[in-house]
Amino acid sequence: MSADTISAAFYRGDKTFKVEQTTAAPPGPGDVQLRIAYCGICGTDMHVFHGNMDARVGHNRVVGHEMSGIVAAVGAGVDTVQVGQKVVVRPLDHCGNCPACNAGHPHICHKLKFLGLDTDGAMQELWSVPAHTLHVLPDDLRMDHAALIEPVAVACHDVRLSGLQPGEDVVVIGGGPIGVLVAMAARDAGGNVVISEVNPNRLAIAQKLGFDTVNPLADDIGEAINTRTGNKGAEVVFEVSGTQPGVDAMTAVAATRARIVMVAIHAQKPLIDLFQFFWRELKLIGARVYEPEDYEKAISIIASGGVDADTLITDVSPLADIQAAFESLDRSPTAMKSLIKVGEAT
Amino acid sequence: MSADTISAAFYRGDKTFKVEQTTAAPPGPGDVQLRIAYCGICGTDMHVFHGNMDARVGHNRVVGHEMSGIVAAVGAGVDTVQVGQKVVVRPLDHCGNCPACNAGHPHICHKLKFLGLDTDGAMQELWSVPAHTLHVLPDDLRMDHAALIEPVAVACHDVRLSGLQPGEDVVVIGGGPIGVLVAMAARDAGGNVVISEVNPNRLAIAQKLGFDTVNPLADDIGEAINTRTGNKGAEVVFEVSGTQPGVDAMTAVAATRARIVMVAIHAQKPLIDLFQFFWRELKLIGARVYEPEDYEKAISIIASGGVDADTLITDVSPLADIQAAFESLDRSPTAMKSLIKVGEAT
Repeated sequence: MSADTISAAFYRGDKTFKVEQTTAAPPGPGDVQLRIAYCGICGTDMHVFHGNMDARVGHNRVVGHEMSGIVAAVGAGVDTVQVGQKVVVRPLDHCGNCPACNAGHPHICHKLKFLGLDTDGAMQELWSVPAHTLHVLPDDLRMDHAALIEPVAVACHDVRLSGLQPGEDVVVIGGGPIGVLVAMAARDAGGNVVISEVNPNRLAIAQKLGFDTVNPLADDIGEAINTRTGNKGAEVVFEVSGTQPGVDAMTAVAATRARIVMVAIHAQKPLIDLFQFFWRELKLIGARVYEPEDYEKAISIIASGGVDADTLITDVSPLADIQAAFESLDRSPTAMKSLIKVGEAT
Repeated sequence: MSADTISAAFYRGDKTFKVEQTTAAPPGPGDVQLRIAYCGICGTDMHVFHGNMDARVGHNRVVGHEMSGIVAAVGAGVDTVQVGQKVVVRPLDHCGNCPACNAGHPHICHKLKFLGLDTDGAMQELWSVPAHTLHVLPDDLRMDHAALIEPVAVACHDVRLSGLQPGEDVVVIGGGPIGVLVAMAARDAGGNVVISEVNPNRLAIAQKLGFDTVNPLADDIGEAINTRTGNKGAEVVFEVSGTQPGVDAMTAVAATRARIVMVAIHAQKPLIDLFQFFWRELKLIGARVYEPEDYEKAISIIASGGVDADTLITDVSPLADIQAAFESLDRSPTAMKSLIKVGEAT
């Protein structure tokens, strides 16, 4: 096989993506080359756009990891997938030899490479990845919907680590794109879910998706949840806001022995009501990315319609318009998930 | 049966205990009257002594809950213990009808009564308690050692909730009376335990008890634990210091997916490095008092010598000298556990 000429969107710094022609080499040993169908714009990609991750990604990087695609070619030694299969990538490459890998947790490897940030990603027509990162999709799964599997897998990981049981009361603090996916995965697992959110646009979307909501700027969140639960509180809480008021709320709404999952990335150290952790024997559970079973769960949720993909996907743009798509998403108060249609592999 | 005249130590406010004669009524239905042997002075009793809990206990309270005793009489309907048996009291009385009780966690009942604080306690020759609070002891267990069972049960609860597995690395942050008991229970469970402590007297006691120690004022605690563990960190951490530096240390020493047990009571909200919870998928577990199985475990540890009771018990005073015992403990930089010999039931 010889190299193919393809279109790829390079981050060039200063809020600029340039779509350029480049060459895609055939897949090396153990790798698989994919023809990309769709790729969603992640919050992390928006951080790249804003220049916050230049030190990590440089100015010659193809981003993108929320993707769907079709196997175009397999490298030497690969027998786990076949040309033509629909697949998604679990974009984690671990070292295999650090304390986390040795303890059986390669998804939080100390030297983890995140594909599409630490390596080139899916905003290009052909993408080669290690075969171990692939999950095969059902033949009839829509490829635009499949581009939601990666963020849904984050939500499935959060819900799995919470140990949520059917019938338990759940509060999701923060109703942005990740928050509503967590809420949908928690509802799919049988939880009685309330979303706490302050942004009116996001409250409207949460309600459109069928969720009860609380606006903690209008109502005391602790009292509201106590009223709903007979003064019991919520057995499961997801902190997705990344804010001090969200951290205050997480202990205020928690039932005795509640499990609070830390989904948000808190760059600053917040104050935490540790007395409540002692008094009510609360549990705080850090959750990061996903493991293979979370991907399988996400695929089954998307395939079954447990996530309302059509409501979540608010726009789709061709790769040639990626710059406009990032600018539009950056300005939009209502967009949930913007997809880039990278190629014709649908 | 008629009422007996007994000696009892009443807290009269203003750092004062008075030993007075009083009458002990026969046990009511469902209750058991105990002849008290020994009663330890708990940190909570010291808070009472300092006047910090006057609103809760008043000025006519007999305190004491770290006790050993012998069944003196049983009330109507009690068939679980017999006169003459050695027993200890698990000093928790729950309401049976709150969300915590309904969820199967009566030890953290929303309306929990703590015997010896919310009711009269064991610093008296005869004490009546609900039969459901009793644990029967082996006949040959020393009654002074048995007075350690209550605080050891706290430690057993902490260790059980941590899910500690043999061979795991453990850091106990804070080497006071509770910290060393947690360390001993963790060692008994197979952990490789290091105690972090800044007080030279406590460091010396921890070393005398056979523990490796780190003084975080002298050495960086994170580096010290990384060096010991090949950059892995500790799988289990107990935060017993109740301080901001202790809370900083708990995330600094934690391995990937470490379990951090919150033993200390943090009256103030500390700053917590939530990013590390996300990044390393740490777990924070609040732990309060104990459940019946923790008492059974504590009894077996004391009976087997897994806790060095003779080193921990630094002094024993007769009930008549309780005032001097509290004053001495309050001044002592080296005392670990002070016992009051309440009666002759040994």
